[in-house]
Amino acid sequence: MNAGTNPLPLSLNTVTVKERWGLADCIEGCARHGIPGISPWRDVLHAMGVEAAAKRIRDAGLHVSGLCRGGMFPAADEAGRRAAIEDNRRAIEEAHKLGADCLVMVCGGLPPGSKDLVGARQMVRDGLAAILPDARAAGVPLALEPLHPMTCADRSVLSTLGQALDLCEALGPGVGVAVDAYHVWWDPDLAHQMRRAEGRVLALHACDWLVPTTDLVFDRGMPGDGVIDLPGLRHMAERGGYAGFQEIELLSRRWWGEDPDAVLQLLRERHASAC
Amino acid sequence: MNAGTNPLPLSLNTVTVKERWGLADCIEGCARHGIPGISPWRDVLHAMGVEAAAKRIRDAGLHVSGLCRGGMFPAADEAGRRAAIEDNRRAIEEAHKLGADCLVMVCGGLPPGSKDLVGARQMVRDGLAAILPDARAAGVPLALEPLHPMTCADRSVLSTLGQALDLCEALGPGVGVAVDAYHVWWDPDLAHQMRRAEGRVLALHACDWLVPTTDLVFDRGMPGDGVIDLPGLRHMAERGGYAGFQEIELLSRRWWGEDPDAVLQLLRERHASAC
Repeated sequence: MNAGTNPLPLSLNTVTVKERWGLADCIEGCARHGIPGISPWRDVLHAMGVEAAAKRIRDAGLHVSGLCRGGMFPAADEAGRRAAIEDNRRAIEEAHKLGADCLVMVCGGLPPGSKDLVGARQMVRDGLAAILPDARAAGVPLALEPLHPMTCADRSVLSTLGQALDLCEALGPGVGVAVDAYHVWWDPDLAHQMRRAEGRVLALHACDWLVPTTDLVFDRGMPGDGVIDLPGLRHMAERGGYAGFQEIELLSRRWWGEDPDAVLQLLRERHASAC
Repeated sequence: MNAGTNPLPLSLNTVTVKERWGLADCIEGCARHGIPGISPWRDVLHAMGVEAAAKRIRDAGLHVSGLCRGGMFPAADEAGRRAAIEDNRRAIEEAHKLGADCLVMVCGGLPPGSKDLVGARQMVRDGLAAILPDARAAGVPLALEPLHPMTCADRSVLSTLGQALDLCEALGPGVGVAVDAYHVWWDPDLAHQMRRAEGRVLALHACDWLVPTTDLVFDRGMPGDGVIDLPGLRHMAERGGYAGFQEIELLSRRWWGEDPDAVLQLLRERHASAC
């Protein structure tokens, strides 16, 4: 399992301990456990206030590996799509204030009542094109995150790394990909697409696929507890030149129920031994 | 929704009513409800006996659109892989005796304890190559069914239609694909791969993706209750020359709890209006 040989620094995605810790706890926890990176979700960021959060994270010496999340472009009507674009512009501004490596984009599923995947994908592309000038001006790269196909209806019509890279090519500079092992591990085209992703990987996320998986959203596994070859994916990213943080993002009812300090301790161990 | 315009005849996959009906009930139910096709799973087939089942299905005037299922090739050791191949040979013989249009192949997930997807995929390919001479000799086409990526760990490392078609090309005559809407609807490459599948589609399965979906296996939706554009997929198949049966296969705790006669009545209605 490449114990102790993981050269990528660890980042804590705040959703991993969301039931018990706010952002202040996460910042202090990372400092206490020697975790050098943090990736906040916008809800905990807003709860603290963006300027205050930026200062506390900076004062704690933490690196912001990403802000979660922009996206969610498809909507049933034009007003909804405009509102999403405006919200994404605010997210870009927040990512800029945090000095985040990127804004992670969870692009959105089908609009309510729609079965039109092609249309929803076009809304994603249009939304990205609309905010891209803002992102470029702010110096905030947009990290398109393909989500597992089981989230296609309600979270992301962007389902594969290949599809994300096609979008990158269509949109031009300022856009890359967030590669989350949980979402892409199954893809028969993964090795090929990771080669294609060279220079485009803005974020690398780790968690594990449990057997059995009992929930489509909230049953992600602690690295090492499942079947994903996490070091294998990291090696692919490294061969493509990726040298950023490796973020652990667990949405898990099980781990949300545990003591966050114990979870962070285990994250550090598993980051070294199983990622 | 193309009400009443579905030209493909309906077939009942027996798993749809598995909690309450054995094969005899399914055969009588299809005859009673005017459903012209049936696709048995091997467990109910074995419970009746293959020869007896073949006779009763024939006597009822039903067409066997497929036998579910062969596959499950990956195993932890050589003995396990040999046992899978032998079991597949029996399945081919059974499909032959039934006069089934095809043997549906659910190829299998990772062997226990393994994280080696490439190796598991090779086991699938080797297993298929081993049984293909038997399938050709028996005149039983093998229908490779890509399964939704959420089943990759424990049911099928064959995850996309493109991957299945690559295998078809590698293996040669006697192999085609089973296209199940539930498994492929999310695929950004679906339209392209359906064009590529021309002449290779051996079976077309319908059920719907519910929002939310509460179980990775047993929460499939009745056609029309979810977000899949089922007529759209059927049209793609028809444009490629497919003129076989359209099979409805529901693995659903909800529908298993209902009166099977009511379920069959609804299947007929939804097959006409929503498939």
